[in-house]
Amino acid sequence: MSEDKSRTGISNVAPGEIRVRGYDIVELMGRKSFAEVVYLVLKGKLPSEAESRMMDAILTSSVDHGVTPPSSLAARTVMSGGNPLNAAVAGGILTIGDIHGGAIEQCARILQKYAPKMGEPSEVAVELLTDLKAKKMRMPGFGHRLHKTDPRTVRLFEMADELRFSGKHQTLARAIEKAFEGQSKLLPINVDGAIAAVISDMDFDWRLGKGFFIISRTVGLIAHAYEELTREKPMRNLGISDYIYDGPPPQELEDH
Amino acid sequence: MSEDKSRTGISNVAPGEIRVRGYDIVELMGRKSFAEVVYLVLKGKLPSEAESRMMDAILTSSVDHGVTPPSSLAARTVMSGGNPLNAAVAGGILTIGDIHGGAIEQCARILQKYAPKMGEPSEVAVELLTDLKAKKMRMPGFGHRLHKTDPRTVRLFEMADELRFSGKHQTLARAIEKAFEGQSKLLPINVDGAIAAVISDMDFDWRLGKGFFIISRTVGLIAHAYEELTREKPMRNLGISDYIYDGPPPQELEDH
Amino acid sequence: MSEDKSRTGISNVAPGEIRVRGYDIVELMGRKSFAEVVYLVLKGKLPSEAESRMMDAILTSSVDHGVTPPSSLAARTVMSGGNPLNAAVAGGILTIGDIHGGAIEQCARILQKYAPKMGEPSEVAVELLTDLKAKKMRMPGFGHRLHKTDPRTVRLFEMADELRFSGKHQTLARAIEKAFEGQSKLLPINVDGAIAAVISDMDFDWRLGKGFFIISRTVGLIAHAYEELTREKPMRNLGISDYIYDGPPPQELEDH
Amino acid sequence: MSEDKSRTGISNVAPGEIRVRGYDIVELMGRKSFAEVVYLVLKGKLPSEAESRMMDAILTSSVDHGVTPPSSLAARTVMSGGNPLNAAVAGGILTIGDIHGGAIEQCARILQKYAPKMGEPSEVAVELLTDLKAKKMRMPGFGHRLHKTDPRTVRLFEMADELRFSGKHQTLARAIEKAFEGQSKLLPINVDGAIAAVISDMDFDWRLGKGFFIISRTVGLIAHAYEELTREKPMRNLGISDYIYDGPPPQELEDH
Repeated sequence: MSEDKSRTGISNVAPGEIRVRGYDIVELMGRKSFAEVVYLVLKGKLPSEAESRMMDAILTSSVDHGVTPPSSLAARTVMSGGNPLNAAVAGGILTIGDIHGGAIEQCARILQKYAPKMGEPSEVAVELLTDLKAKKMRMPGFGHRLHKTDPRTVRLFEMADELRFSGKHQTLARAIEKAFEGQSKLLPINVDGAIAAVISDMDFDWRLGKGFFIISRTVGLIAHAYEELTREKPMRNLGISDYIYDGPPPQELEDH
Repeated sequence: MSEDKSRTGISNVAPGEIRVRGYDIVELMGRKSFAEVVYLVLKGKLPSEAESRMMDAILTSSVDHGVTPPSSLAARTVMSGGNPLNAAVAGGILTIGDIHGGAIEQCARILQKYAPKMGEPSEVAVELLTDLKAKKMRMPGFGHRLHKTDPRTVRLFEMADELRFSGKHQTLARAIEKAFEGQSKLLPINVDGAIAAVISDMDFDWRLGKGFFIISRTVGLIAHAYEELTREKPMRNLGISDYIYDGPPPQELEDH
Repeated sequence: MSEDKSRTGISNVAPGEIRVRGYDIVELMGRKSFAEVVYLVLKGKLPSEAESRMMDAILTSSVDHGVTPPSSLAARTVMSGGNPLNAAVAGGILTIGDIHGGAIEQCARILQKYAPKMGEPSEVAVELLTDLKAKKMRMPGFGHRLHKTDPRTVRLFEMADELRFSGKHQTLARAIEKAFEGQSKLLPINVDGAIAAVISDMDFDWRLGKGFFIISRTVGLIAHAYEELTREKPMRNLGISDYIYDGPPPQELEDH
Repeated sequence: MSEDKSRTGISNVAPGEIRVRGYDIVELMGRKSFAEVVYLVLKGKLPSEAESRMMDAILTSSVDHGVTPPSSLAARTVMSGGNPLNAAVAGGILTIGDIHGGAIEQCARILQKYAPKMGEPSEVAVELLTDLKAKKMRMPGFGHRLHKTDPRTVRLFEMADELRFSGKHQTLARAIEKAFEGQSKLLPINVDGAIAAVISDMDFDWRLGKGFFIISRTVGLIAHAYEELTREKPMRNLGISDYIYDGPPPQELEDH
């Protein structure tokens, strides 16, 4: 059955040579940082100096958040069942859905929709929030269950200012934050929202948004899986140990 | 049911503060490269300048190898079924088993067993290979289905020499390669073997070996999943399109 | 930190006793078929005789579809990388997304929305298709890339007729099929659509729709992973072996 | 690049016809139970009446064990992060490793090694345990953290006796249990060990052992993921909420 040949624009591999986005991987080694290579692979070209430094900061910002997030829990749980490291990491990455890490994707999607047509940022922010409200949606990337002001956001935006690397998506994100200020509940930009704004200013497609979080958090997941393997007993109780059963009462099979 | 509290040595998180291995994540952002942070998270301390450069090179070396490896295939296949990016990446990482990428782990395990007691490297290499032969095992991390000489290995060892960063594990790996030379089949150190030797000289536990490959390849997997999403039709035939059925012939149910 | 206790209505477990939806698992063993237990676990009560026979048929219908579907390919690819059986099955299940198997969920969602308000089925079918067209959506669960008439659909509906087990969701599905008849492209109900209609008539929530396919296909995935393990060499080329690279041309790093 | 065609003995699919192990899937629907089809797919032929009833009981025995096992926890955790049902089930299945469910595989491997050469069962049991002790291994499939006598084991063996379906692997398993009796710690055959013995008497390869558990538990995992989706808030704390950090004390970056 003759099929069309596959096409790819990522890598070209031949005996003795591996080229990624046109660059010989061996030439990249030792000359470009891993963060620059991440940018290259996902964008198709090398970053500027400012983009390179922002990429390092983005990938550092989400590298770990302790034992409590769902991804750490899942990675440890898979490891605890007696599985290899790759299965544990995969289990952790599986949790990174719409609610956990997924805000980067959704926030970037919205910023990329509204920022291009931007006149006065504060007006666009109000328009955007009104549109979301009409659809009964909340703005992703704002608010955090633990941090009142997310210190990672502050640092990312501070760096963007220093590097004079700040475009209309960051401007819009800050305008949204301002628009929330009158409200009862504090809704500061969280790290997901900040990453969404910065990668949007780097002209990354929002559909890659979750990718930066995944690359970064994979590092923490490996550390958690390894710590589980080396410090804990297999099959320890990592989750619910006590529960209330509120389903059907005991049934006799003869009843049927 | 009273359970012992969990203990962790990775991160400590409080409102407004995230410390990884003791360092404030916000202070790391903009001052340390992502490769240095990877080292920190997995090792518990910051790397030296030479270790930092080697880590960048290691993470760059395995970032992608085109559309043919099992991990690219699995990531694209999951994406093609209409799934989110994290599921596609998890599917790709699941393939990274004993055969694909797993050689780092196994090679590092063996190097870390034999290198400490090392007198004359060539003798230890012969002893090690004799031991493996007795167990009918082959030495992992040597030979490649495509590359006769793996250019990534050459570059990693060249950098290690330049940086005067080369210890007994690299010495042993090179001695094993030499011991293979008389054989009919070429068995040069491949990139898995080279990474195994270098991380062993950095004093990483072999059980973390696959982790470096996973962090690195996750980047390529995201690129493949994204390319599949944006360039290809869903459910295209990515794998076997033509096959020979050689199972039982047609059976009538009445026969039973 | 005091947390609310978890609640569950599925199972209650004590030393020496496991009750699922109120029934002692030991009493179920040997008295109820596995298909009846599947119904019990997912529905919370035991099925009628007709429901029990339909459940057996549903679970049988999707048990395997050969080596070409994405799920078989992913399961084999994970196994081929040197991984345990559970990782291979997980890889296969990951592919079962919106496009592969997901039509059950989406089709059931639509049937469950339109069937309750049903007057004349043919009119509701036209209304439903008009609504979908306005949203630029196609009706899931109709048409198949290989089978012109899906034999599994024919058999499921035949059984439902024989067992006098056919409700408004099956009626609506057939009315939709009829409404398609004038069109250029044949769009018969496929097995996903048939399962969607039958489980809707059993009053299962559409959000469980994919679950029946997953339970069923897991069996085939185990067979494929096992066949890969026992008949094939590790790391064989299961997917793309030939490709055209159409990304950036070779780049010199010095250019930057 | 010309590749050998793939071969498969599982299914043969053509337009309008799907044959599994030679049987038309449409003929199986309505005539054979799902448990019989599971046996057919994994074994390559249909079961006898006794085998069919044992298969129903095996698949029922492991269908769920409440909210506490690692697989339930992982499935709920993935769902809680905002992911589709298939990702949640895959996360649950990933946990089913050497420690959780994997005992079926390992126990069956050992029983299949020792049972064929069996003279006096009690002597083989002692020989087997002596061999394991020499390798510092424990016998998998015996003992349970919750159940002193596993009621599922009792029922499986009771059924096997009634159906006169009991071969040398069950005999050996019971002899091992007897050999343990003198010991301080109670080590009764658990459900994993019982399934291992019964599928070995059905002549299934031990490498398929985990498969029966996976098929069975997939049902429970779907119920848990669905309950999480429909009863709980996203991102609730399912695991570790309180922990002690015992890693490096706060570090100043300037120190380096």
